[in-house]
This record gives sequence, structure tokens and C-alpha cells, in this order.
Amino acid sequence: MSVSTLNVTVWNEFRHEKKPGLIQEIYPQGMHQTIAEFLRADAGLKVRTATLDEPEHGLTEAVLAETDVLLWWGHMAHGEVNDEIVARVKQRVLDGMGLIVLHSGHFSKIFKSLMGTTCNLKWREMGERERLWVIDPSHPIAEGLPEFFEVPHSEMYGERFDIPAPDALVFVSWYQGGNVFRSGCCFSRGRGKIFYFSPGHESYPIYKDANIQRVITNAVFWAAPSNGPKPKFGQEKVPLENVPAE
Amino acid sequence: MSVSTLNVTVWNEFRHEKKPGLIQEIYPQGMHQTIAEFLRADAGLKVRTATLDEPEHGLTEAVLAETDVLLWWGHMAHGEVNDEIVARVKQRVLDGMGLIVLHSGHFSKIFKSLMGTTCNLKWREMGERERLWVIDPSHPIAEGLPEFFEVPHSEMYGERFDIPAPDALVFVSWYQGGNVFRSGCCFSRGRGKIFYFSPGHESYPIYKDANIQRVITNAVFWAAPSNGPKPKFGQEKVPLENVPAE
Amino acid sequence: MSVSTLNVTVWNEFRHEKKPGLIQEIYPQGMHQTIAEFLRADAGLKVRTATLDEPEHGLTEAVLAETDVLLWWGHMAHGEVNDEIVARVKQRVLDGMGLIVLHSGHFSKIFKSLMGTTCNLKWREMGERERLWVIDPSHPIAEGLPEFFEVPHSEMYGERFDIPAPDALVFVSWYQGGNVFRSGCCFSRGRGKIFYFSPGHESYPIYKDANIQRVITNAVFWAAPSNGPKPKFGQEKVPLENVPAE
Amino acid sequence: MSVSTLNVTVWNEFRHEKKPGLIQEIYPQGMHQTIAEFLRADAGLKVRTATLDEPEHGLTEAVLAETDVLLWWGHMAHGEVNDEIVARVKQRVLDGMGLIVLHSGHFSKIFKSLMGTTCNLKWREMGERERLWVIDPSHPIAEGLPEFFEVPHSEMYGERFDIPAPDALVFVSWYQGGNVFRSGCCFSRGRGKIFYFSPGHESYPIYKDANIQRVITNAVFWAAPSNGPKPKFGQEKVPLENVPAE
Repeated sequence: MSVSTLNVTVWNEFRHEKKPGLIQEIYPQGMHQTIAEFLRADAGLKVRTATLDEPEHGLTEAVLAETDVLLWWGHMAHGEVNDEIVARVKQRVLDGMGLIVLHSGHFSKIFKSLMGTTCNLKWREMGERERLWVIDPSHPIAEGLPEFFEVPHSEMYGERFDIPAPDALVFVSWYQGGNVFRSGCCFSRGRGKIFYFSPGHESYPIYKDANIQRVITNAVFWAAPSNGPKPKFGQEKVPLENVPAE
Repeated sequence: MSVSTLNVTVWNEFRHEKKPGLIQEIYPQGMHQTIAEFLRADAGLKVRTATLDEPEHGLTEAVLAETDVLLWWGHMAHGEVNDEIVARVKQRVLDGMGLIVLHSGHFSKIFKSLMGTTCNLKWREMGERERLWVIDPSHPIAEGLPEFFEVPHSEMYGERFDIPAPDALVFVSWYQGGNVFRSGCCFSRGRGKIFYFSPGHESYPIYKDANIQRVITNAVFWAAPSNGPKPKFGQEKVPLENVPAE
Repeated sequence: MSVSTLNVTVWNEFRHEKKPGLIQEIYPQGMHQTIAEFLRADAGLKVRTATLDEPEHGLTEAVLAETDVLLWWGHMAHGEVNDEIVARVKQRVLDGMGLIVLHSGHFSKIFKSLMGTTCNLKWREMGERERLWVIDPSHPIAEGLPEFFEVPHSEMYGERFDIPAPDALVFVSWYQGGNVFRSGCCFSRGRGKIFYFSPGHESYPIYKDANIQRVITNAVFWAAPSNGPKPKFGQEKVPLENVPAE
Repeated sequence: MSVSTLNVTVWNEFRHEKKPGLIQEIYPQGMHQTIAEFLRADAGLKVRTATLDEPEHGLTEAVLAETDVLLWWGHMAHGEVNDEIVARVKQRVLDGMGLIVLHSGHFSKIFKSLMGTTCNLKWREMGERERLWVIDPSHPIAEGLPEFFEVPHSEMYGERFDIPAPDALVFVSWYQGGNVFRSGCCFSRGRGKIFYFSPGHESYPIYKDANIQRVITNAVFWAAPSNGPKPKFGQEKVPLENVPAE
């Protein structure tokens, strides 16, 4: 198995951080830069960023064609994401590009379109403690983690989370206020792999946490294109039984 | 457990059968009537039909509100199904109505929207034999069936079938021409349950087959609303830990 | 679909309750009698009990042959359950009998044998509050329940729970002390269905709780034999392609 | 992500190949040597072999402790495998070692013990054609494969295959004689990953086929230990809520 460099694109709505205030103080360059920075610490990753206000949201055909794994953070401007770009991203995921959806990205057009459900949930913002338990220690995304780890101040995301049952459930979160959440969920769609990871509220420095960084880095490698066969769809004219395999 | 009557609506595009020819000869009243008829043989089911060319495609708010399980057959006119009606049906599925998608319904707007993938597949029309194997004999949809049964003349639907991995895989089909297909697939979405069943090409009298009828009848009972809790989504203001449960 | 009466056998180790003290005060006739009693309130169920100290643990060939769904509560005497009886129960599960494993039954021979893993977990006994969240509102076991409900005093069972990923995850529990648990898990094995449900510590009157009773009653109906085909295993001498289906 | 060399042990019963005849002609050094040889072609793998008739079947504590992924081929002598060695292998799988079970290994003690079911199936030996379809092109085990490939002469293994529903289904086989089979199945158990792959009958040179070799090589990398957390089981004395995470 040859291991080559993975091309990663970190997409961020990048609106919260442009306004003076707490969020900007935590992420003066934007969350995408913080995320890109810790990913770049891994020699196997080549990382670029893209944001909503760039032309084509920074997700041109050329950028996507070169992207192995795309990370997605959005919140206040989901509705401003162009439907054509959403369709383009979806096509790339179905064709093999990995997609990592972060926090409030649960309500992004791209995630809802790939899940087929509302992706709705409960939420509460009072800075309570979140504890993430590793439910599946056999999963590559759990590599190098402790049995559980904490986000000291988190926005609560709680069940019922209206998603299809994930193909693998890696994390379940406990919240101080009495809620639970499937906080790390894996899905396969088409030839692509998708990981949803819930921590990442903009008002807390969550992407600076070592365990969170570890999860996201692991997820990038897990979501890398598998290069399985590209299916040929449509009409078959000759019964295959009489045709030798390729 | 009280067992009450289930309200079933059989929806059919009903276009093929309106043209003189082979299909009309097999299903002079339309496939929906044949399906409705065998379902009515079960005393626990109250069955109505609806078709594309009725006002609102026969799927008014009132009809859907009264429907426990909806069956869907469409093919040549998927594009004519109104997007608002599709959204209405989707909402009802997520709210608990069962949905049984038949044959070429794999390409219907409602199925693609609920799956989040292309739902594409291979196909070949030469009347070859299909043999359906029961993969999961523990599943209620397999009740009363033999280990395998055959459709003597079938349109081939073959893998790769571009759907999410089903929550349960009940049937896998073998085709004389060399293909296989996940022909009976269960999914949960929201509070609703979905069953996709591939046999049912319009040019063969497949819905008159006793095993096929058994599968569809079993599926209707399986897909009945579970009446699980209706989730409350959105903001929670008070930490639940300090609030007694209902 | 004809709905006939289900034959249910409630099996209990019945040792804790024989000793004077708190447990006996809560369950003077044994937990099995409390469970049998609320199940009998459903007209569709015909319920008997069986306990460890009866001959063949009350699980003779004849009793098992007549049992549609078996409930299992054991704790201090797992090792005393005869291996032959375990093999007999396992055979019946694989042949279609439903099995509902309660609380400390996670460590029973029968459950470990069917799961293939250690079924180990974390536990803590300090009477803390447990809150069960419905994760899958489409599931029949969630019928009639609120979004979440509580056990005011519970023994904590916490992740990592060493089981295979369940085929459906119905409940996740939150514990006051900081743990989470997959507290309601569905599995199919052979032609049989298995439900593991964790609440039920002997020192608290948990089986007298209306929501708990509802879950167990729902689970009995869900686990009823599906009467899918009984597979024929072993050598096939003639290629089926040339043999008409049954 | 650092990628280091994986230590692979290929275990073979090695009985068929010791008797003069067809099988010995195909695999004069034993199937394990053929398998070891193609795995060694990958620079990332360090491969050793072990066989039934070696002391401790070649699976000493030391060998297993150094093994990242174990391959298992057995058939006529399943009963001769020592129960203690089986328990030792199982413990290692639950602790993270990958396990790849080949062909007639479906009936090995280790596989049955990990699955919890009979692992029984249908079989027919007449050298018919098998066609393996890739069902999940997103899966790493499908890397570099065509949509389908063939084994020109194969022993038929057919459904019903009495296993738990796999966590991922990668291949489904079509057989000329009219059967289908879930021929490539992934499972997680404990911290370990298991892949069952059905082609590999001893009387045909199946392990010399390039696609088969590709699948097995891919599977070795997929099954590599994830190094997720090692769970701590048993009693917790202090409520975690008041204890900071590690």
C-alpha cells in the first residue's frame, strides 16, 4: 500500500470571526486557519483553506478536483451557500472525496442533502461541560485517544439527533446538564466517506484542544478516498454470464 | 399491544397501463388496483389508491394525514411529480408514516431525497430469471417465505446500487445473466420506516405472484408507524439535570 | 397478518430475593413474578416463570419448545447455569425464539455466547440518577414512550460496553456521575432477535416503573419469532439454476 | 499519521497440501506460503507463517503478541485446534489484533466463537464460476479493484450464511449454479477488526489470482490495529463528574 500525501481543504463560513469580539479574539485568523495549522503539523497532509466570501466560496471545480478530504464549518450563513456549489460538493463526495462536517455544519445544505433527514437536534448554550466517550475503540478515528476526554465549556447538542443510523458510532457525549449526543458518526455515501463531529462551538477555543485535534486528524486519514471501483450505471445490453470479466 | 387497522395508500404513476398493449393487458385497472386488491385480502388493512394524474397526485394533506403506510410505484414520469407534494410526503415519512418503494421507484424524487444518494443502478431488460434469497430469516418481512423464490421473467436490476448501507438487508437477488442486487432493503429515517423492494417490472405479471404479494403485505405491517416519541428540537433553556422527567 | 397469543417465559436466577433484606422487601415473590405480572396485563401474552433452582433451571426442552420469548435476569450465580441448558437456549434463539436480556444478564453465559465478546462494562453503585434517551423514535420498542425518562436511583452501567455494534440502538443512558451507556440494544442472531436492556438493579424497584414496564412489554412483541424460512444448510448436489423453485 | 511496518502471521492448517495429489501440486509449499509470498511483495508488511502441527500450532504467546494481523485457513482439522490456543487468539483479537478468516475457516472455532452463531452455509463443489461484485466502493478493501471480478472455478458457498449482520458488506458473490453469498464481510469485536473472505477452495489456484491477492492485501491494512483506547472495565468508585479527565 503506497501512502501518498492527502490534499485537504478546510472550508469555513468565516463570518463570526470577522466581527470584533470574543470569537475573533479566540480565532483572529478564523477557525479554518487554526484547523489548517494543526493539520499541517502532519507531514502526510497538504492543507489549503476556502471560505464563503471567496468567489465560488473557494470551491471551484479545480479546487474540488484536487481535494481528497474537505472539512466544513458553517453556522449563520447556511442559506448563502450557493445550491450549485452544494451540488458540486455532493457529486465529489459521491465520487470519493471525504467530508468532515463540524459542529453547526449539521444544518448545512451539504450535510442535510447527503443524510436525507432534517439533521435537527436540541441545543443549549451555557458553557456546560461535555465529556466524549469512545464507544468504538476498534475504529481508526479513536487512535491514540483516552477512554474519554472533556471539553470544559461546550454548547450542548442533544438527542434526538435526526440523522440516519450511522454506519459506525465512534463517540457519545455526556453533558453536565443531562443530555447525551452521538457526537462522532461515520457514514458512507457513494464512494465517499463522511464523518460528523459535534464539538466546535465558536465561542470556546475547542479547536485548540489536543484531543479534538487528534480526532479531526484521525478523521481526515480515515475519510481519504478508498479508490474503490467507479461503478458503471445504466443499461447493460449483454448478459454478463456470457462475457468474461475484465 | 392493541392492533388496530392500518390505513394504506397505494400510489401509482399509472401511465404505462393507460396505453393499449401488453402492460395494459396484464394490469387493465393499473398496478395500484392489483396491489390494493391483494392487500385488501388482509382484514387488518384498509386500502385506498392514488395516482399521478389526480389533483395533488391524490396525495392531499388529508389523505396523507390518514395514511399509515404509503406504497410508491413510478417510472416514466418521476419528473412530473410536484416538488411540494414530494416535500409533503417526506415530512410525513419523517413523522412516522411507513413508505414502501417499489421497483423503478428507486429513481423517484421521494426516494432519492430520503436516501441522499443517486440511487442509480444497472439494468437489463431481457426477461431473465431472478431468484430472491432470504438473507435475514429473523426479519418480519421474511415471514412465511421459502428460503428463496423466483420471478421467472424479470428486469435485471444490478449492483452497484447507489444507496446508503441499509439498516437491514432482507433479500439479495441472483440473476441468470450474472448480476446480483440488494433487492429488499430496510431503512429508518426520522420516525418513519422505509422498505425498498426491487421486483415489479410493468411488463411482467409480478404483482400477481403469491410470494411477491406476501413480501409486500409483510412489509406494510413492518412499516407501520411505531408511535415512538415525537422529538422536540431546538433550544433548551434549562439544564435538564435539575428538571424532573415528564 | 394474524396475531396470536405469545408464550413468554420469565427466567430469574432468584437468589437475591430469597435472603431477608432490602431486595426481598422490594420483590418478595422474586423479580420474575413482578415482571410476569405486568406482562400478564397484556391480553396478548401468556406468561410463565422459571428459576435457576428448579430442575433443569425450569428450562426443559418442552418449556423452551413452547416459548416464543424468553426473558433472562441473572447476577450472582451465572456460573451455576448448566452449560447444556445454555446450549439448549442458544439453539432455540438461533431457531427463532426471542431473548430479552436484563441488567446484570450482560454477563450471563447465554448473552456472552451469542455476542462473542466479553460483554464487560463499567459499573458504580451509589444510587445515582439515570436518564434514558430514545435515540431511535422509529423503533417499535420506543412505542408510547416520552423522549426521555428517568430511573431516580440506578446502578451505573457505563461505556465502554464490550458488545458488537448493535443492529439497532434504541436507548442511550445518561448518568448523573458522568457516564453514558447504550442501554437498549437490538441484535439478530440466526432466526432470533435479542434485546439487551440495562436498567434493573435488584436493590431498587425498577421493574415497578411504568416506563420500564412499557419498554419490556414492547420488546417482547418486537422479539416475537418472525417465522422466516428455516435455512437448509450443507451440501447442495444439483445446481439450482436448473431446478425450479419450490 | 506514522505508518510503520505491520507484522502479519499467516496461519494454515496445512494438511491437504501434505498429501500427494492435486492440492499439493497447486500449493507444493502449502497455501500459507503462497499467501505469505504475495503479502511480502508489499514493503509495508513483515510476514511469518504458522501451522497446526507446530508446537502450540505456531501461535505462542510471543508470536501473537508480535502479530498485528492474523490470517486463518482451516478445514479438515478444525477440531484439532486446541481450545486454549483459540482462547488466546480470541483475547488478542478483542485486544486489537486484526483477523482475516479465509474460506472454510468459516467453521473454525475462532470464527464461530467471535460470531456467536453457527456460521453454517450451503456448499456445492462442481467447479462452477463465481463472480464477486463490489457492493461498497467506499470501503478500503475495495481499493484498486474492478466493479466485479471472477473466480473461474470455485466451490459454491451460498446463503443463508448464519452470521450476524456484518458491520460492512464489501462483496456479494454470484454463482453460476444459482446461489448468492456475502463473500466479503467486516466485523468489529472488542478493539479488533475481522474480515471474512470466502473464495479460497484448496482444489483451485485461487490464492494465485491477482484480484484475490489484492483483496487480501487490502484487508490486512484495513484490519491493522487501530490503537484506540484500551477500556478499563469494572467498578468505578468515584463519580466521574467530579473528576477531571486525564
